[in-house]
Amino acid sequence: MAETVVRYENLVEFTRQLFQSIGCSAADATTATEVLLSADLRGIDSHGIARLSGYIRLWEAGRVNATPSIRIIHETPSTAVVDGDSGLGLVVAPYAMKVAMQKAAQVGTGWVSVQNSNHYGIAGWHAMMALEQEMIGISMTNASALVAPTFSTERLLGTNPICVAIPAGEEPAFVADMATTTAANGKLEILQRKNLEAPIGWIQDAEGKPTTDAHSLKTGGALLPLGGDREHGSHKGYALGAIVDIFSAVLSGANYGPWVPPFPAYVPMPTGMPGKGIGHFFGAMRIDAFRPAADFKKDMDNWIRRFRSAKTVPGETSVLVPGDPERELESVRREQGIPLLDPVIEDLQSLAQKFSIPLRLA
Amino acid sequence: MAETVVRYENLVEFTRQLFQSIGCSAADATTATEVLLSADLRGIDSHGIARLSGYIRLWEAGRVNATPSIRIIHETPSTAVVDGDSGLGLVVAPYAMKVAMQKAAQVGTGWVSVQNSNHYGIAGWHAMMALEQEMIGISMTNASALVAPTFSTERLLGTNPICVAIPAGEEPAFVADMATTTAANGKLEILQRKNLEAPIGWIQDAEGKPTTDAHSLKTGGALLPLGGDREHGSHKGYALGAIVDIFSAVLSGANYGPWVPPFPAYVPMPTGMPGKGIGHFFGAMRIDAFRPAADFKKDMDNWIRRFRSAKTVPGETSVLVPGDPERELESVRREQGIPLLDPVIEDLQSLAQKFSIPLRLA
Repeated sequence: MAETVVRYENLVEFTRQLFQSIGCSAADATTATEVLLSADLRGIDSHGIARLSGYIRLWEAGRVNATPSIRIIHETPSTAVVDGDSGLGLVVAPYAMKVAMQKAAQVGTGWVSVQNSNHYGIAGWHAMMALEQEMIGISMTNASALVAPTFSTERLLGTNPICVAIPAGEEPAFVADMATTTAANGKLEILQRKNLEAPIGWIQDAEGKPTTDAHSLKTGGALLPLGGDREHGSHKGYALGAIVDIFSAVLSGANYGPWVPPFPAYVPMPTGMPGKGIGHFFGAMRIDAFRPAADFKKDMDNWIRRFRSAKTVPGETSVLVPGDPERELESVRREQGIPLLDPVIEDLQSLAQKFSIPLRLA
Repeated sequence: MAETVVRYENLVEFTRQLFQSIGCSAADATTATEVLLSADLRGIDSHGIARLSGYIRLWEAGRVNATPSIRIIHETPSTAVVDGDSGLGLVVAPYAMKVAMQKAAQVGTGWVSVQNSNHYGIAGWHAMMALEQEMIGISMTNASALVAPTFSTERLLGTNPICVAIPAGEEPAFVADMATTTAANGKLEILQRKNLEAPIGWIQDAEGKPTTDAHSLKTGGALLPLGGDREHGSHKGYALGAIVDIFSAVLSGANYGPWVPPFPAYVPMPTGMPGKGIGHFFGAMRIDAFRPAADFKKDMDNWIRRFRSAKTVPGETSVLVPGDPERELESVRREQGIPLLDPVIEDLQSLAQKFSIPLRLA
């Protein structure tokens, strides 16, 4: 499929104007744009500008509030629950992460569960906010159900990602950002577009049997939890996805399990929803609430260097530290631009026309 | 291999007397016994009384201090670092978890990283302490290196387990207790004893190639992170094990990665150790620091019932909730006794003789 490389700055300008034209404040539009496009910079293409038209359709369907009153509805010195007032998750999540960091500044750590939000882009952006203040950042979110728990034929969990970002000294930060499934849905979508088969362990069919048919989610199939099957520990991936769901939604009063609102605006809302919107969970831990930051950083550098210099299996050049591939891609794409597939370009062009916003591709 | 079923109470009595005869106080011996044997009750046989002689050998080697001065060496309202003074992890860990819970009672959550400890039994026992006080409990520990990160032929991480225990209302608690590898080392040991092959995805050989030889850890092989290989997400299992290592040891000043002290007392200590002993990490979050506990419990019950009643794949009777198998086994074994393999019985008999403690098997 053909693709066009577009400068990051051009996409920023377009996206910011688009968010403003649906009613977002200038500050919110800037935040939402930075969060959304961080996915494109870091190579998680499924969660970036390719989803922009999806966000706009949610606003058109009345499911996104462009001018939310985001607020804390309950708190203790180290915790809070935030009500996102149906705002863009791209705006609600940074607000909530800031609350977590403020609490960490006060009492050592901060933990915030969020109700009444929407999709928040990549987990990594929010967790990485903590790095600038010498804190460990944690970010997770639930999402609409695509994943079958071990032994189930029903889809009851989202791909429910977790990110943990840990500062280092001279070395770049450790940033683990991952779906709790064997493969993220975005990777499956790539196979679908290219009409390729999926490896066994990524998905099952409607009867719960392993399948390589990348299209099986359209016929009742499901993504599989990390591990793939019981013998390979899928009950652990299932447990991780469940923990994300419970911390994000049962702790906040959002929707959980099969009741999480779907991302495509044309999919009807589930019946009998127990909570409000989508849920997220954030944590911030001040390094010096445990140890002098300088000591910690020295050990983190030592940790990172030891792992990066480990002997490799034949054919691989080095053992990676979580965050290495995304950081390297980000530096390339900031410089050289972001490759967009034709359908994404067409999507942006129709948004440009509809909202009368200039879209510069060259 | 032949086995004998021994009453739980008999094992408690023997183990308690043994810990007292190496110098533990009566209170510490009681705690250590309860923690150690909870593994046998819950079916994690590799971490229970089968390890008792190993703990004693560590004491004989001067690596376990039976009368430690466990203390907080740094703290904020929501955090602490605990120095275990080389005590039994079975005693240090409950101390540290209590500190986390006290902080949660005060400011909503508590987070404790531990240095200078030893193996702490099963992660689950410590996390489950929180359940009685309507808190979520989190427990993790590093361990000596048996696991190769993705692309590595070197063993740099332990099986580094994570447990998250979440209270419910009328339903039993959600308790996910898992090694961050595809399969725990205990499962591999079972295959070794029975001379069976391991599934592909559990282990690699010395060159980093997938193998089914359950004995390959003796010839330079390694356990694999959850996921098994890169295509099936082993980089995620590696990241999880790394997070456990960093929270447990880099945050506390314990040893990490390949420098974690080995459990077998005859294995020499690694050279160039950067910290003190083994590290753990504990968390406690008060439910009502987020939401009224009654509301949370109602939603947890709803979550658990929805998952447990999901449609199953053919041949399975129900979708399990994390903690179900261990809880069911515990109720059986408390009643009917704990099956012990002959080599374990012989181990206990030689301890009984050496320390002149009566061992009742019938």
